[in-house]
Amino acid sequence: MINKMETLMFQGNGYFGMRAAAEEHQLNERRNMFVSGTFDAFPSEVTELPSLPDLINMEIKIDGQALCLRDGQVENYHKYLNMKNGELIREFDWIINHKRINFKFSRFISMQDKHLMVSKVEIGSDRDDLNIKIRSGIDGQQSNSETQHLMEGDKRLYEGTFIQLKEETQQSHIKFVFNVRHRAYIDEVLLNNKPFIKMGRRQIFGNYDVDLNKGQKFTLVKYANVYTSIDSDVDNNDLAELSVNALKKNCLSNYQELLQKSEKIWNKDIWQKNYVEIDSDDINPQVAINFARYQMAANTPRDPRMNIGAKGITGEGYKGHTFWDTEIFMLPYYIFTMPNVARNLLKYRYLGLEGAHKKAQFNDYDGSQFPWEAAWPSDGETAPLWGSADIVTGEPMKIWSGFIEQHVTSDVVIATMEYLSATDDQKFAEDMGYEIILDAAKFWTSRLEYDQDHDRYEITDVIGPDEYKEHADNNAFTNYTAQWCIQKAIKVVNLLKEDHPDLYVKLDDKLNLVGAYEDWVSKVNKIYLPQPNADGVIPEDDKYLSKPIIDLSKYKLNNQISNIFKDYNLSQVNDMQITKQADVLLLIYLFENMFDDDIKRSNWEYYEPKTTHDSSLSLSTHAILANDLKLDESAYNFYEMACETDLGVHIGKSVQGLHMAACGGIWNMTIEGFGGVRITNGKLRIEPHLPATWRNLKFQINWQGSLLKVCVVNDKMSVEVVGDSIEFVNQNQDYQVPANSRIEIEVPVEETVER
Amino acid sequence: MINKMETLMFQGNGYFGMRAAAEEHQLNERRNMFVSGTFDAFPSEVTELPSLPDLINMEIKIDGQALCLRDGQVENYHKYLNMKNGELIREFDWIINHKRINFKFSRFISMQDKHLMVSKVEIGSDRDDLNIKIRSGIDGQQSNSETQHLMEGDKRLYEGTFIQLKEETQQSHIKFVFNVRHRAYIDEVLLNNKPFIKMGRRQIFGNYDVDLNKGQKFTLVKYANVYTSIDSDVDNNDLAELSVNALKKNCLSNYQELLQKSEKIWNKDIWQKNYVEIDSDDINPQVAINFARYQMAANTPRDPRMNIGAKGITGEGYKGHTFWDTEIFMLPYYIFTMPNVARNLLKYRYLGLEGAHKKAQFNDYDGSQFPWEAAWPSDGETAPLWGSADIVTGEPMKIWSGFIEQHVTSDVVIATMEYLSATDDQKFAEDMGYEIILDAAKFWTSRLEYDQDHDRYEITDVIGPDEYKEHADNNAFTNYTAQWCIQKAIKVVNLLKEDHPDLYVKLDDKLNLVGAYEDWVSKVNKIYLPQPNADGVIPEDDKYLSKPIIDLSKYKLNNQISNIFKDYNLSQVNDMQITKQADVLLLIYLFENMFDDDIKRSNWEYYEPKTTHDSSLSLSTHAILANDLKLDESAYNFYEMACETDLGVHIGKSVQGLHMAACGGIWNMTIEGFGGVRITNGKLRIEPHLPATWRNLKFQINWQGSLLKVCVVNDKMSVEVVGDSIEFVNQNQDYQVPANSRIEIEVPVEETVER
Repeated sequence: MINKMETLMFQGNGYFGMRAAAEEHQLNERRNMFVSGTFDAFPSEVTELPSLPDLINMEIKIDGQALCLRDGQVENYHKYLNMKNGELIREFDWIINHKRINFKFSRFISMQDKHLMVSKVEIGSDRDDLNIKIRSGIDGQQSNSETQHLMEGDKRLYEGTFIQLKEETQQSHIKFVFNVRHRAYIDEVLLNNKPFIKMGRRQIFGNYDVDLNKGQKFTLVKYANVYTSIDSDVDNNDLAELSVNALKKNCLSNYQELLQKSEKIWNKDIWQKNYVEIDSDDINPQVAINFARYQMAANTPRDPRMNIGAKGITGEGYKGHTFWDTEIFMLPYYIFTMPNVARNLLKYRYLGLEGAHKKAQFNDYDGSQFPWEAAWPSDGETAPLWGSADIVTGEPMKIWSGFIEQHVTSDVVIATMEYLSATDDQKFAEDMGYEIILDAAKFWTSRLEYDQDHDRYEITDVIGPDEYKEHADNNAFTNYTAQWCIQKAIKVVNLLKEDHPDLYVKLDDKLNLVGAYEDWVSKVNKIYLPQPNADGVIPEDDKYLSKPIIDLSKYKLNNQISNIFKDYNLSQVNDMQITKQADVLLLIYLFENMFDDDIKRSNWEYYEPKTTHDSSLSLSTHAILANDLKLDESAYNFYEMACETDLGVHIGKSVQGLHMAACGGIWNMTIEGFGGVRITNGKLRIEPHLPATWRNLKFQINWQGSLLKVCVVNDKMSVEVVGDSIEFVNQNQDYQVPANSRIEIEVPVEETVER
Repeated sequence: MINKMETLMFQGNGYFGMRAAAEEHQLNERRNMFVSGTFDAFPSEVTELPSLPDLINMEIKIDGQALCLRDGQVENYHKYLNMKNGELIREFDWIINHKRINFKFSRFISMQDKHLMVSKVEIGSDRDDLNIKIRSGIDGQQSNSETQHLMEGDKRLYEGTFIQLKEETQQSHIKFVFNVRHRAYIDEVLLNNKPFIKMGRRQIFGNYDVDLNKGQKFTLVKYANVYTSIDSDVDNNDLAELSVNALKKNCLSNYQELLQKSEKIWNKDIWQKNYVEIDSDDINPQVAINFARYQMAANTPRDPRMNIGAKGITGEGYKGHTFWDTEIFMLPYYIFTMPNVARNLLKYRYLGLEGAHKKAQFNDYDGSQFPWEAAWPSDGETAPLWGSADIVTGEPMKIWSGFIEQHVTSDVVIATMEYLSATDDQKFAEDMGYEIILDAAKFWTSRLEYDQDHDRYEITDVIGPDEYKEHADNNAFTNYTAQWCIQKAIKVVNLLKEDHPDLYVKLDDKLNLVGAYEDWVSKVNKIYLPQPNADGVIPEDDKYLSKPIIDLSKYKLNNQISNIFKDYNLSQVNDMQITKQADVLLLIYLFENMFDDDIKRSNWEYYEPKTTHDSSLSLSTHAILANDLKLDESAYNFYEMACETDLGVHIGKSVQGLHMAACGGIWNMTIEGFGGVRITNGKLRIEPHLPATWRNLKFQINWQGSLLKVCVVNDKMSVEVVGDSIEFVNQNQDYQVPANSRIEIEVPVEETVER
């Protein structure tokens, strides 16, 4: 439980972030702090985000007794995260040795100064005098589950009060500087006693010793910052001096003033900007969407050389690596609400072409094969090669994802196209977008395998979105999206030749488009696309439908992950019709206009019962698709389950970090699902279908440079445009909203399929 | 407290060892396990012994509740180390959720198979049924205060029951293999259910799930071993197979059988062999000497490429490095009781000539300059270069020990001479000993500085044994021992020329003895030896006696280390007549025949009051010297304080590991001090002077190949010789004991100086 709450109450500003561990050490805690993008590889391992020195630690002794909530009694305990301004507060009364002591800890990471965090402890007792000893500073004795990335550098003291630790990653040679300064008060009076400094291995602490009368309050404010040599906002030639000077400047303001500055940014840039308001008797949906937006803001780096990790920077899980989670589950939020952030996240993939080329070359393919797990853009593939030993043979098992889970290259193109549709960002298209699309198509054509018997191109030996099926042939999702990528590339070449001949020449020089284009045209229509069978079911892969079926209900009811593996091993699961997560259904959701309603419904009915939803990526897709199919009860069930991925009571699920894709999924279900906002054939569609318990839904999105304020109240929808005129589709009808005006249309109240 | 007890109850066999941490995790625990000599340097740091994967961990759940002694109630708690056989036992009743559960944990590290440890947990309840879940295996998530030395290798499973983890140090490339196998029983019936295996990063665990009826007992026996690629006892080409086969063989015996095999070795090789029996109403002296001998046995490697660390292998303190502690404070024990071990420890210095040459060359000296901190023999100096920042200037401070604390080279020669005197081991002398002596003399002559004004040689800018005085000129201990080394070398050359001309030629080829000898002879008598002043006080160094004197009594009463630094910084202490530890007094103790009784007494009276004893090396020397001076009360006070270095109640002192020199010191005080066993001018002297409260003292020592059983009862001493005839001195009288016979002499009862 302690680890789950550390994750849920994570604080961050995209540049850096830390888990909500307590100031004092606790058994089984995970104290991680990370700075986005600062990857390092320990010898023999793949790269990961190093767990950084602890800036929040405090060892507190009252009358010589160390604060530990397992000793004495604790009353009035309250720990809460204020998502409005990112402030974390923990307060309680500690009754120990016949004294009652009131503690209040507060802290925040600034949204206004990305290097800064400020924390505060307040201690007092109404009826007892206290001796308070506090040891607080920079504790560099942190690691990634005991793996150390940082070489210890100088420990320094400036002006008797500013303490500093320098470190450097041992392989990637990224330099870090951490600074801390304390201010101590009794009641509101600043004490000017300098701390007694002690240093240890990777540690530098200030020690305070204060006698407090009953009724008085002792306050210790801790200003801390972190700078790195890859920071894009500062000259990193003298980080040590620059960072300590920055902290000196910060120290001119008090805790409350700095919190207010940060709160202003939260309000302006996040909460006000693209609000989502749900009117319902149930508070949970509003909490869920707020939580999702809070965590996206706290975990998204603003530097295009970095991306969002599958667990953001909230924990060690997945080593800070970026997966297709960003493109398919998180980018819709940014495309519709903060296109500039979406652009940065896509630019990361453009910068990542270098790594994608490496990976393609290593595997003897052409073009750009995007890594299954991505870290620094030029790294290429960073998925681990070897996993646990097979329980039966005892031999270490190869992790196949980095080799054969190839659809990520399509996913990058899908996101690029969505971004271009939603923003019409010609500059991005010309500078980066077209090249991403063309290079991806080159990869796919080189990847195709010719099958002489059928005169067609196949893609064998892959892992599709359903990760239970290793070494699948002609995974539908993979084959359909590969063809689609090549089709897009053909269109781009046609467009460039006609409209941008200069750019065409430039890209042709770089990518040899003449040969590539011929290749695409000759192969694209011969790519094998698994067709629906007599029952309208699209086979997930060549063998799926011929495998035995078992009753999965007992594994679906249970909230434990990987429950099925208690009864079957991976190879047994591989040989049955069991699906981990939306696969064919994801294809249908993403490319809805390729399939008619009957096909959608028959695939839903076929695949959903065979799906364990053993991935946090599965539920949101199912919720949206169910809503599309008007399966209202299912839709809401999936919606609620999806919201509970992190927020639910299941201990253990979020221990290693948040499910960032599930956060994206909450927005997707709310706006794309119930709000009905979708991009089809490059056009905006708005077709809300609210849950019965929601009275109304208000939200704001961006579309091609304009702001759209959408309000759905039961049977009516209004769309107000701020900016240029826009168009959208509703119930197959085109609507045009003139610049800076508002229209209102009826929302048909349909019969739902389920009761 | 928890850390101190982990240290005190350390278990080991010299090859490997582990702290007495609990099976279940506890807050602030230190779980270290080390294998002697397996040094590795993390980038930018000096080499240290890597903290190895944890082989004793067990996560135990009773009815789903994890065992944690902070939850529920604990009764009948008892944790004890049986020093006779090295078995550690912890038992208690845990009352939780209305059930009372009896736990007993036992474990030992084998003295018979140096790679093996066996542990056992027994769980039962008289009145309740229990569900017991245990996760136990190899937990490689260990580090040296979060610094990781090991690269993760394969995790494997053999025959469904043997689990294996391979790792390798990242810089020194030492390979490790760890194996574990469990056996589960209900009552005495072996269960044959295989564990459910789970693997994580650096982790491999077996999971057990057992339902136990009331009155039944569940037992889990854990067999574990460790092998490394630098093991000298095995072919290390296929450690993985070899080690798992060894464990299979071990598993043919049960816990008790393996414990008995180990106990036999403890008995034969340690307890019986060189017994020390103290007859006194106070049990503490016997406990102290047993503890000292237990820890020496558990911490002394038998491989001459390795030595005893200042903290053995009991903790991370001093990184496993060897200091002069071995030669001056631990070797007497081995020289007199296990000369073969003493030989190995000296051979380490012979092998270390390579590193000592490196260090000398680096510092522009000749010959062998032994490192202040030694790790692998060829490493040379491994002392850290930089310490904490200066509190005043904020700048990192240089650690000078590795540069100017040079007397260690003399200390190695002193120990070599003692060993040669006590054993008459001509082979060692010819193979190694002479070369050590000659090479050390070459260093010292190159180190001397000529002072034209006085036509003498000085040694300036050193740290003597008193580490409070950095950059001292003509430290008495350093100058006297340097001259003595050169004198010994001259004698060795004379002897070789006369008796071993072949060896002389060989060593001359290697060391250029002709030139060196001339150098020695021309300089040796011009080395400046600080002489006693009018009050008979030998100046510790050139400036010491002119510095101000302060009253130290308040710092001496306190048992906290470095207490003086609360009021003064190092540079202030440097400028006063304050001594950290025996310095002039150590010189007097080691070279007693150089100084008459008046000089001894005046220096005692001068220096002891100025000494903070802020080093664990100080007290034992003072105890022995006080006993020599017949200051009986002081002697016993120092003796008792010295015994309490680790065994005393002071929390904090032993957190980072034991004080191995203090363990050696316990033997020295007992046998060299009260037992009066000393080597003077190469001769054995036995002149007991027992404390008033000791009725008698019996012990056994080795002298030149014979065994001497010494028994002191108040006013009589008997010496029984097993083996060839030997000679010893008592009260300036020579005694000869014929082969295999016994003599008895009177021990004069003298007036003591103190009341």
